[in-house]
Amino acid sequence: MTPRVREILSWYGSENIGVLTNMARMMNTGKLAGTGKLVILPVDQGFEHGPARSFAKNPDAYDPAYHFELAIESGCNAYAAPVGQLEACARDFAGEIPLILKVNNSDVLFGSKAPISALTSSVDDALRLGCSGIGFTIYPGSQHRKQMYEEIAQISQEAKKAGLAVVIWSYARGEQLSKEGETGIDVIAYSAHIAAQLGANIIKVKPPTAHIEQAEAKKVYEAQGIKVSTLAQRTEHVVKSCFNGKRVVIFSGGEAKATPDILEEVKQLAQGGAFGSIMGRNAFQRPKKEALELLKNVMETFAGKTLN
Amino acid sequence: MTPRVREILSWYGSENIGVLTNMARMMNTGKLAGTGKLVILPVDQGFEHGPARSFAKNPDAYDPAYHFELAIESGCNAYAAPVGQLEACARDFAGEIPLILKVNNSDVLFGSKAPISALTSSVDDALRLGCSGIGFTIYPGSQHRKQMYEEIAQISQEAKKAGLAVVIWSYARGEQLSKEGETGIDVIAYSAHIAAQLGANIIKVKPPTAHIEQAEAKKVYEAQGIKVSTLAQRTEHVVKSCFNGKRVVIFSGGEAKATPDILEEVKQLAQGGAFGSIMGRNAFQRPKKEALELLKNVMETFAGKTLN
Amino acid sequence: MTPRVREILSWYGSENIGVLTNMARMMNTGKLAGTGKLVILPVDQGFEHGPARSFAKNPDAYDPAYHFELAIESGCNAYAAPVGQLEACARDFAGEIPLILKVNNSDVLFGSKAPISALTSSVDDALRLGCSGIGFTIYPGSQHRKQMYEEIAQISQEAKKAGLAVVIWSYARGEQLSKEGETGIDVIAYSAHIAAQLGANIIKVKPPTAHIEQAEAKKVYEAQGIKVSTLAQRTEHVVKSCFNGKRVVIFSGGEAKATPDILEEVKQLAQGGAFGSIMGRNAFQRPKKEALELLKNVMETFAGKTLN
Amino acid sequence: MTPRVREILSWYGSENIGVLTNMARMMNTGKLAGTGKLVILPVDQGFEHGPARSFAKNPDAYDPAYHFELAIESGCNAYAAPVGQLEACARDFAGEIPLILKVNNSDVLFGSKAPISALTSSVDDALRLGCSGIGFTIYPGSQHRKQMYEEIAQISQEAKKAGLAVVIWSYARGEQLSKEGETGIDVIAYSAHIAAQLGANIIKVKPPTAHIEQAEAKKVYEAQGIKVSTLAQRTEHVVKSCFNGKRVVIFSGGEAKATPDILEEVKQLAQGGAFGSIMGRNAFQRPKKEALELLKNVMETFAGKTLN
Amino acid sequence: MTPRVREILSWYGSENIGVLTNMARMMNTGKLAGTGKLVILPVDQGFEHGPARSFAKNPDAYDPAYHFELAIESGCNAYAAPVGQLEACARDFAGEIPLILKVNNSDVLFGSKAPISALTSSVDDALRLGCSGIGFTIYPGSQHRKQMYEEIAQISQEAKKAGLAVVIWSYARGEQLSKEGETGIDVIAYSAHIAAQLGANIIKVKPPTAHIEQAEAKKVYEAQGIKVSTLAQRTEHVVKSCFNGKRVVIFSGGEAKATPDILEEVKQLAQGGAFGSIMGRNAFQRPKKEALELLKNVMETFAGKTLN
Repeated sequence: MTPRVREILSWYGSENIGVLTNMARMMNTGKLAGTGKLVILPVDQGFEHGPARSFAKNPDAYDPAYHFELAIESGCNAYAAPVGQLEACARDFAGEIPLILKVNNSDVLFGSKAPISALTSSVDDALRLGCSGIGFTIYPGSQHRKQMYEEIAQISQEAKKAGLAVVIWSYARGEQLSKEGETGIDVIAYSAHIAAQLGANIIKVKPPTAHIEQAEAKKVYEAQGIKVSTLAQRTEHVVKSCFNGKRVVIFSGGEAKATPDILEEVKQLAQGGAFGSIMGRNAFQRPKKEALELLKNVMETFAGKTLN
Repeated sequence: MTPRVREILSWYGSENIGVLTNMARMMNTGKLAGTGKLVILPVDQGFEHGPARSFAKNPDAYDPAYHFELAIESGCNAYAAPVGQLEACARDFAGEIPLILKVNNSDVLFGSKAPISALTSSVDDALRLGCSGIGFTIYPGSQHRKQMYEEIAQISQEAKKAGLAVVIWSYARGEQLSKEGETGIDVIAYSAHIAAQLGANIIKVKPPTAHIEQAEAKKVYEAQGIKVSTLAQRTEHVVKSCFNGKRVVIFSGGEAKATPDILEEVKQLAQGGAFGSIMGRNAFQRPKKEALELLKNVMETFAGKTLN
Repeated sequence: MTPRVREILSWYGSENIGVLTNMARMMNTGKLAGTGKLVILPVDQGFEHGPARSFAKNPDAYDPAYHFELAIESGCNAYAAPVGQLEACARDFAGEIPLILKVNNSDVLFGSKAPISALTSSVDDALRLGCSGIGFTIYPGSQHRKQMYEEIAQISQEAKKAGLAVVIWSYARGEQLSKEGETGIDVIAYSAHIAAQLGANIIKVKPPTAHIEQAEAKKVYEAQGIKVSTLAQRTEHVVKSCFNGKRVVIFSGGEAKATPDILEEVKQLAQGGAFGSIMGRNAFQRPKKEALELLKNVMETFAGKTLN
Repeated sequence: MTPRVREILSWYGSENIGVLTNMARMMNTGKLAGTGKLVILPVDQGFEHGPARSFAKNPDAYDPAYHFELAIESGCNAYAAPVGQLEACARDFAGEIPLILKVNNSDVLFGSKAPISALTSSVDDALRLGCSGIGFTIYPGSQHRKQMYEEIAQISQEAKKAGLAVVIWSYARGEQLSKEGETGIDVIAYSAHIAAQLGANIIKVKPPTAHIEQAEAKKVYEAQGIKVSTLAQRTEHVVKSCFNGKRVVIFSGGEAKATPDILEEVKQLAQGGAFGSIMGRNAFQRPKKEALELLKNVMETFAGKTLN
Repeated sequence: MTPRVREILSWYGSENIGVLTNMARMMNTGKLAGTGKLVILPVDQGFEHGPARSFAKNPDAYDPAYHFELAIESGCNAYAAPVGQLEACARDFAGEIPLILKVNNSDVLFGSKAPISALTSSVDDALRLGCSGIGFTIYPGSQHRKQMYEEIAQISQEAKKAGLAVVIWSYARGEQLSKEGETGIDVIAYSAHIAAQLGANIIKVKPPTAHIEQAEAKKVYEAQGIKVSTLAQRTEHVVKSCFNGKRVVIFSGGEAKATPDILEEVKQLAQGGAFGSIMGRNAFQRPKKEALELLKNVMETFAGKTLN
């Protein structure tokens, strides 16, 4: 147990020892073990966008075993997926990598400006599958936010009682937000903060842009001279917005893009104090060899050194 | 126990032995026993479309005993029906064929672009009737998808705890889908994938057409050159979309049609790697002798050989 | 126990012996005892239409005792009423006639094209009142059908576990049905079939008219030449629609009308194979002597002979 | 489904269809399928007598897989064992043979004239392991009989609600019974009858001797001239004592003995109308080849003909 | 994940993935990680024998932190203790070593020939403390065996549902057993077998002596020529008695003794195929440096090579 991991655990004084144990398991697994940094492979794209959009580019990825292998071989800290995706292979990989059960999911066969995911699995499922945590998506900005916040409040209580860590995917969306507003710095920082307030142990948001969505917020950002021109600055601001940096905040890779773009983004996230990345499509839509190379570079960037 | 059935069971490593036992029962019954292929007789048409539309063409079919006899004599792997339909004769046929209790049902006395079925029976009913599994319809695309996904998540957990297999009928329908979109290849593959993610042991969808409904999906199908011009190709794509072929996917016969059309369709389904058919109206709306002949041909097509 | 009653019980092989016992009690009571025919007195009109509309015409009927007496004296097989109506006198008539507790009820102080009744009593009430069964109204066609089907599924399971018979009043109503459609032959047959699928032991519908409401159904009625021109033919079709005649289907008398009209209707119902009538207003809104005479004639018609 | 199996099921009119289905599964499995006769392999000796006494003679039998294989290869109708013994291999043999979970067990590290077994598993275990029934030992004659009868009453209710068949091992033992009295004809017939009265679907007793233990019973046996001099006569009396032969009564093989002795005993059991044997030590303590030969002979004796 | 660990997990096909994950965690921790061998530090002596008898010899051991440190530094696979002992320091060591919560405990302020431990903690406690398993002591031979077997059956079901591994300490004791009989080879093998039948994932017994306690067993040991003269032979027999070696059986160190005696004992255990040792007093009653040296030697013996 490194001092850094011990320090991070010390921020979670209200959690029971089971939750700390599972957080430690994630932080002590893979190439970034002990650094306090995390790279997680999430594969809920099949559910969220459909199988062809998710897997056709790299057809090996149709197989659930592929993702277990990719996460393990690349040295990720954890692998996150919906219940069916985990069930398909979890027996074959039992004990090889910490698992996060994504307990709610959406599809795009019905779209809405008032998004809310369905609860597709439970804390009991997470326990029987040997998971270290559960993942839950909230959409701040949706008119259904009350229901979502209450769902996560309840399932989080149940999960933590069972010693499971709680990871919140916080994606602002809704009628009153513009498309670019969804990733505006004020909105991302706010969404991350809401997740922290809801008791998330690990917070996942998208990399923020320099756009500021809310007029009231804009006044303050300008008056106080909050620096948001570089991604590193914005990252720092988001992390600071989560209890002054005392919550683990990780960033999604977003849409598929070219390798140099990803690495530049990750470099800035790392400079800004991000605790890591949760990288799905950019990992599993590449050929495996390329994906392993990319993830190695990403991990090295977060580690600040060359890894084996 | 054939190697093929054993292989199929090996894909379900997260299920308990009761679920595997009931899957084995279905796969080891009837003319296709041991092949890993399934032909199931479903009779929920009376509830779904009304008695005259379902049974008037072949009035023997008004009698629930007829369907038990048809399923048994034809050598089907299982018989699926709502609770009343099963209760009417299950004592007389106890132990003769695996039963699937269709636990939710709809009727057409009220139609809606936001469909959702009613839970008309329970896991307790399935157990007291000696069933091997439960059947549940979801309508991805409906604005009630959240409720449906949560209903199946809960009843599935309960059913599997009791050792029952879970069969999901996945039929996309809803305000944002065109009529032809409901059977478009992208939508069918996506619907099947959602069922897999929800933990279905057996997935039932309609045969897909070459139509592509979703613009974002269309780009990918074209860019990746996914072949969807023949039904065999489309079937292969749907099966692949379910955990790379490691879930049992069967196809409904759809509307009543002429025998040569059915057999051509089944031939292509079989070529594409379908695990079988669930054939209701096309079976029970024919005179029994004709239905037995048809089912024999269907089974032979899936078996790839002449059956007794 | 007559062979006919034994034969009818044989159709209910999935019910426990308590349910069979209570069905036998009803079939072995009154003037029609042993014939397999049933005439039941239902008095939920006070709740459904208000007291004056129900009882002012024959003021003796304001007294709940009156209905017990009418049912017993006339030799009905059972008496059905809401909880208050039964509670008022059940102690005084304990053991004299099988009772059916009507567990849900509606009033007309609020009308809706999306009807649903309220659960006003329970299986526990039915047991403490010594009832032989419960009665429940569904409105197929209502947008609340999901809720109603789920309510009856649950209460039916509970009632049968306690050995009570389940009687379903199935009345199609809703936004997409025309007024005359509510009693159209296709809709009545479909409603009766839904009740059978939901596990009803006894099914109550209205006498059907020759109207065909649904376009898809109309095609089939015409193509298959289903005869629906006389009430006897329509009755036969409805009974056939309930598991090929293997469910007890009885018909309500509907609105108050003249004696000859009632008797003609009953004659045709009997010719068509109806299992009996459930006759409320036409019985209790007449002076008692006249009502007794009418019920005697009705029973004789169903018995096909002169009764004592 | 043979007429004989259908006839046997007809004796169990109070059981739900799930129980009948599981009884049918047992009667339709193995070499005796369809005959209404049963040969069951029970392996609870390890728990009951210790591993060396049970398995050292044929060391292959230390392996739980051996017993699954023996039961399947020999064509037994079912395999019965405690939870650990089943769990060890049930996944590998899922669906190959009906299983009976022996839910209570004793060991001989503490002996008592007031025996009572411990509940070591549950109906939930039976369901998750895909069992067709549960097995339970009662010791009529023990001062703890009240507790045992109440335990089986409760677990039987739960098992049958879940569609599981109930097998009762009925072994009279206790302070007031002599050693030879435990297998006396009056005591065995009485023990079997008690099991029937407790609702057993299948009753297992030891082959009775001509000894009569109870003075009051002896008077009747003599006065009525009940023939008990041959095992065939005694078997007939025991079977008659179980609802005039309308319950499935099978006989244990008892202590290990020589092949001719076993076959002579089985011959007489079969002549007396026994429904079969439950043969443990005499099967698994022989080398496999010899055990398969013996079981073949036993099955042929019950079938009354030469089997494949 | 080594092939050996994967092989061991394959023996537990009835357990869910959570249980496998926690077994893998234990087998993949410490110096023996990946070998399939286990050395566990148990510290329930304070409760079982009192603090002075347990800790006075090495006063550092009064401090619960000492034992966490000892288990971690020595490279044990897991640390087992009662709830208070774990609670005292578990936050400080969260995630550093798999924990086993000893859920029942005895003290010696009341001694009995009919021993039974008290349930002092629960599965909920195990989860909130981040444990990988629970430990439970049974005393076969005690007249309270029924109660104990039922307690472990129930708590085991609950623990496994939550993904926790179940470790059974099986110590025969009771009125009918002599003092030397408690460790007699027949009794130890029987006790281990009972634990296996009760569903233990890991079985802990004492090293057996050549004494044979039970007359009936003695006959078999002699007749079959079971070799029990060396500890290695006896160990082999005990392991074979647990499902032919397909359960993890570990041996306690027993009373404190001299280092060479311990190492000789461990050597023979290892030769006989033991899966490891659970060593309490012999570890923590030595000065830490000495204890670390001893544990290193013990682990090397099980590993069959020199460890770092």
